[in-house]
Amino acid sequence: MRESDFLRLLKQRLSGLPSAPEIELGVGDDAAILRLHRDPRFVVTTDMLLDGVDFEIASCGYRSAGRKAMHKNLSDIAAMGARPIAAFVSVALPHGCREEDAAELLDGLCTAAERFHCPIAGGDTKRSPSGLVVNVAIAGCATGKDFVRRSGARPGDALWVSGRLGGSVLGHHATFEPRLDLARALASRDAVSAMIDLSDGLSTDLGHLAEASSVGFELDAARIPLSAAAHALAAQDGTSALDHALCDGEDYELLFTVRDPVVFEAVRVAHPEFDLSRIGAILPRASGRSLVRVDALGNTTREALAARGFEHRFESPRKGE
Amino acid sequence: MRESDFLRLLKQRLSGLPSAPEIELGVGDDAAILRLHRDPRFVVTTDMLLDGVDFEIASCGYRSAGRKAMHKNLSDIAAMGARPIAAFVSVALPHGCREEDAAELLDGLCTAAERFHCPIAGGDTKRSPSGLVVNVAIAGCATGKDFVRRSGARPGDALWVSGRLGGSVLGHHATFEPRLDLARALASRDAVSAMIDLSDGLSTDLGHLAEASSVGFELDAARIPLSAAAHALAAQDGTSALDHALCDGEDYELLFTVRDPVVFEAVRVAHPEFDLSRIGAILPRASGRSLVRVDALGNTTREALAARGFEHRFESPRKGE
Repeated sequence: MRESDFLRLLKQRLSGLPSAPEIELGVGDDAAILRLHRDPRFVVTTDMLLDGVDFEIASCGYRSAGRKAMHKNLSDIAAMGARPIAAFVSVALPHGCREEDAAELLDGLCTAAERFHCPIAGGDTKRSPSGLVVNVAIAGCATGKDFVRRSGARPGDALWVSGRLGGSVLGHHATFEPRLDLARALASRDAVSAMIDLSDGLSTDLGHLAEASSVGFELDAARIPLSAAAHALAAQDGTSALDHALCDGEDYELLFTVRDPVVFEAVRVAHPEFDLSRIGAILPRASGRSLVRVDALGNTTREALAARGFEHRFESPRKGE
Repeated sequence: MRESDFLRLLKQRLSGLPSAPEIELGVGDDAAILRLHRDPRFVVTTDMLLDGVDFEIASCGYRSAGRKAMHKNLSDIAAMGARPIAAFVSVALPHGCREEDAAELLDGLCTAAERFHCPIAGGDTKRSPSGLVVNVAIAGCATGKDFVRRSGARPGDALWVSGRLGGSVLGHHATFEPRLDLARALASRDAVSAMIDLSDGLSTDLGHLAEASSVGFELDAARIPLSAAAHALAAQDGTSALDHALCDGEDYELLFTVRDPVVFEAVRVAHPEFDLSRIGAILPRASGRSLVRVDALGNTTREALAARGFEHRFESPRKGE
């Protein structure tokens, strides 16, 4: 595969896709030209995925790798309360990559692009001296009055999460879908104060949100939604399903704090398809970061949750209250 | 090196750089937020560079790799008649990459960012199962009334190029600088009708420009500016310096067509520091693509220049005129 072959395949594949009003000039020049229609602001995110790190091409195939590269970046766009405008894809194809492999990779990228209304407006291809590398950059625009940052959480806000957490390694890490519909429903109604997507694990990403917002929090262990995969892994390795939900990465669900409970409840009622769980509350920074458990006898235990749960797991529990 | 270490190094390094009015939110959230101030349009370009393909890290070092990754993308921004707003950098660091290597890479990236007023507003880092991979995406905005595309050349336009061409492999491919000042001077005065940066070699990139504009051209062999490196390579390998200038890649000079000779002359007079050569003219498509040579006796030879010079070199010459 030469660069010109890949760009030809890309153009062929793109010619079947609907164009977008924001794309004034797509693939084929030194850069793409995009046009904003309302808000003069836009967001950009980028992520690189590599064979042997983010996927195993020998087992997952090229289509799955392409899809994951798009979905992962779209998840970041969702976490800003944004919608995508266009994607820019760089790929390094390994020695021995056949034209049908490249076509599958493009199909994975383009199917995601089409499904989530994120046309591919630029591409670059190289040969890779080792495995497949895919970098995606996506530009997006706001769906509401403003983007949703990590830094907007305030004491008193309720803490919510979408989906079921943990055990992503059993398959979800390759098949997850970006929560763009949820993000739009929340951001367009101005219902949330802060948001982040779960890539490093609940405890770590909640730590990032708390750090950016200069707040503390209290997480209700019983309310954390555990995935079937978290239970399956727990049965295998003896770590609890809750620990998997707290520490496993690649959930790609949205963690957010609710600014306006009335508006948020209206969003929930209007969208019963979203699987949402209230898992805790934002506290003043001085209140720290804790995980609250209630045992069968009704006794409450409060553990300090380390800022970097994924690396350090738990501090020694304080008996309490 | 963990991701958090790299991001810490990046934030440290960035804290010394001036911020830009377009960056509303930089490194540290799920995406960066950028704001346009005038034109509601922006450009995006992206390019991936790999060890063993675009540089040899063992000989060039991490700083040079970082600089090249930025300069290559900035060259694409220049080719659109644009100026950069912000860069987004993804890196995969190889096994054995030390903290000082990562710091050198960042220094190469950040020095270029500072010099060309292109702050780094987003970063992503991974471990690489093999060599260093660096992807840069840059968003930019227009310096003139419009961006300069490849497709705007019209019969009668004069064809110009910056710098000296050929033999980039001897060193220029690592040390070139993006022609952002030239691009701004040309585009802000609306002096040029089409532009492309020379990455694949003059004959190939001129073919791209002619194809996009649906025109033919005539290239004056005697006027093509030959680099000292093209001559040096010619002395080694027996291929002429002219052939090196036509076919070697990675010049990263600007090739452009002049729409308004009076305005263009004013730009040239105002900027004697630009090394510019008039190398031919745009013709109607039906006139084809030719290289014109004049021998010592004053006889003119006209050769058809293949659209993909780098792959096919020359067609058999037609004797003529």
